Amino acid sequence: VLGLSGGADSTALLLALDELLQAGRLDLKIIPAHLDHGLRVEAGAEDASWALALASELGFEAAAGCAQVKERAAQTGDNLEQAARRARYEFLSGVMAERGARLLLVAHTLDDQAETVLLRLMRGSGAEGLSGIEPLRALDQKGGKDTLLARPLLGWARRAETEEYCRERGVEFRVDQMNLDESFARVRVRRQLLPLMASFNGRVVEALARTARLLGEDASALALEAGKLLEAASVSDEDGMSDKSRVGEDGPDDEKSAGVGTSFVPELRVDVLKRAHVALRRRALRLWLERGRGDLRRLELAHLLAVERLFEGERGGRLVELPGGLAVRLNRGRLRLELKRG
Amino acid sequence: VLGLSGGADSTALLLALDELLQAGRLDLKIIPAHLDHGLRVEAGAEDASWALALASELGFEAAAGCAQVKERAAQTGDNLEQAARRARYEFLSGVMAERGARLLLVAHTLDDQAETVLLRLMRGSGAEGLSGIEPLRALDQKGGKDTLLARPLLGWARRAETEEYCRERGVEFRVDQMNLDESFARVRVRRQLLPLMASFNGRVVEALARTARLLGEDASALALEAGKLLEAASVSDEDGMSDKSRVGEDGPDDEKSAGVGTSFVPELRVDVLKRAHVALRRRALRLWLERGRGDLRRLELAHLLAVERLFEGERGGRLVELPGGLAVRLNRGRLRLELKRG
Repeated sequence: VLGLSGGADSTALLLALDELLQAGRLDLKIIPAHLDHGLRVEAGAEDASWALALASELGFEAAAGCAQVKERAAQTGDNLEQAARRARYEFLSGVMAERGARLLLVAHTLDDQAETVLLRLMRGSGAEGLSGIEPLRALDQKGGKDTLLARPLLGWARRAETEEYCRERGVEFRVDQMNLDESFARVRVRRQLLPLMASFNGRVVEALARTARLLGEDASALALEAGKLLEAASVSDEDGMSDKSRVGEDGPDDEKSAGVGTSFVPELRVDVLKRAHVALRRRALRLWLERGRGDLRRLELAHLLAVERLFEGERGGRLVELPGGLAVRLNRGRLRLELKRG
Repeated sequence: VLGLSGGADSTALLLALDELLQAGRLDLKIIPAHLDHGLRVEAGAEDASWALALASELGFEAAAGCAQVKERAAQTGDNLEQAARRARYEFLSGVMAERGARLLLVAHTLDDQAETVLLRLMRGSGAEGLSGIEPLRALDQKGGKDTLLARPLLGWARRAETEEYCRERGVEFRVDQMNLDESFARVRVRRQLLPLMASFNGRVVEALARTARLLGEDASALALEAGKLLEAASVSDEDGMSDKSRVGEDGPDDEKSAGVGTSFVPELRVDVLKRAHVALRRRALRLWLERGRGDLRRLELAHLLAVERLFEGERGGRLVELPGGLAVRLNRGRLRLELKRG
């Protein structure tokens, strides 16, 4: 399934795949899929019929759908961009399920990568955020490898090159008016910030993409090491058993693990965490909280710093409350994740 | 020794230290030191006498010096900013040696940190570059802890706050015309890029400094792991001895280590490198090359990628040439650093 908005990027990707298919250099059944987000009544319908016409002209069997993104945004509290993205991926996943497709292709370019890096940088992100958009990932959020999301243009194609290629092929792509609306931060990054940065380095888009790739590699190496640390700091079943026989100064509420949401996470040994490098420790704690809670929503650096202060002895506190009704308690040299009652 | 340019930053730092000394909250002998870079004949002399007057007014014994930065830049091929920085640190180190000082204080602010991060980002730097300016480091490039360089304002003070504080203390700081000259990239970052970014996030300077701190922690954790990897991949003396008895397919030039510059570095086992994460492997290779050569000048990511391709078997090559007359040779499952003759 190929996400086809009708913009230069996705049109160029469809045309390029068509060229490869025609030349016998690709063996893949491609289903162009277009979603009308319901944001621009007339233009939306025009884009949709344009996309279906192009697909059929090239001999592809396309899929189309409609969403009411504004209404969704109002319901969920997402902003318009978030709601549109969610609606799009839901639609595309639906098409994949219907047609038995296992690969989703989307046409993000180097420019999208650079914009994403800058948007995250301006929020003070770390390596994970600055690694930007992934070129390839499991589509299933839980990491199953059954369905994949691939971005074949991300690593090398500039947006202007996709426009140029469409022109060469004599196809007039669509221009989404929302891509010109400077009330969107991404549009302002594209039309103001990146041009200014290009006056420092004409290849700044490539430079930002390079940074994203390097930091993505770093983040993946650190995640691996943090996983090992979490393993080493976790109190195993046997430790837990022997622990139960000890008389704690904190009284009787001495379960080994806290059941939170649907998951149980072990207690963590503070001595092991203390010896670890802060960059690994913080990631191990984040992983632990994510496993305990099921997600990391609204969890910020400040919360992790507060948990660290628990065992750095800088404050007298023994409990840190976290968003979502969770708390981390320091108890006889161990950290325990608790679900707050009431 | 305190680097006193006469700008708001260093003037505020001197005034703040004076306030702490007066209040009996600091016990330190402070030597303000001012360098006239010889770039602005009249203004340079005015700044120098202003700095000496302020120091003596506050009761400090100051030091002053002159440099011919333009001439130095022409000789060394450095740009003006680099040559000025080098001249400054030479002068300040000289004052420290003369006076037996062990701590150098410079007045970089959060704004300097943000500017540095952006300048490096626009060149596509990785975590090390993006970690920006260090708050504290050994002054000696070789890492000796005898003399330290500290930047007490870096983690929290905005440039505007240093200006405000000078005004509160009734001291009229100097304005360096070069700080208004937009032919310098740093000045344009300060006067154009950061203001535009602040229209996205009013606290973007703090956000960039936060990113720098996080990536600095990551880089330090990765350096630690890369050091372990280099250790694990290095062929030990004993391995080397037993190796010599083997008959190599590559003939007789089979020394265990190559003497390069003043250092010897061991051969590296390709099997160990291959199993390692790319983010650690690349850092281990860089560390190995740095030890072999004494520095990393002109060594770029492309060179490391070429060395990696040696053992990834993507190309048939067995030798990669590096800047500075060095080469890395793949020889029976090991990498060897060679000094090119001729």
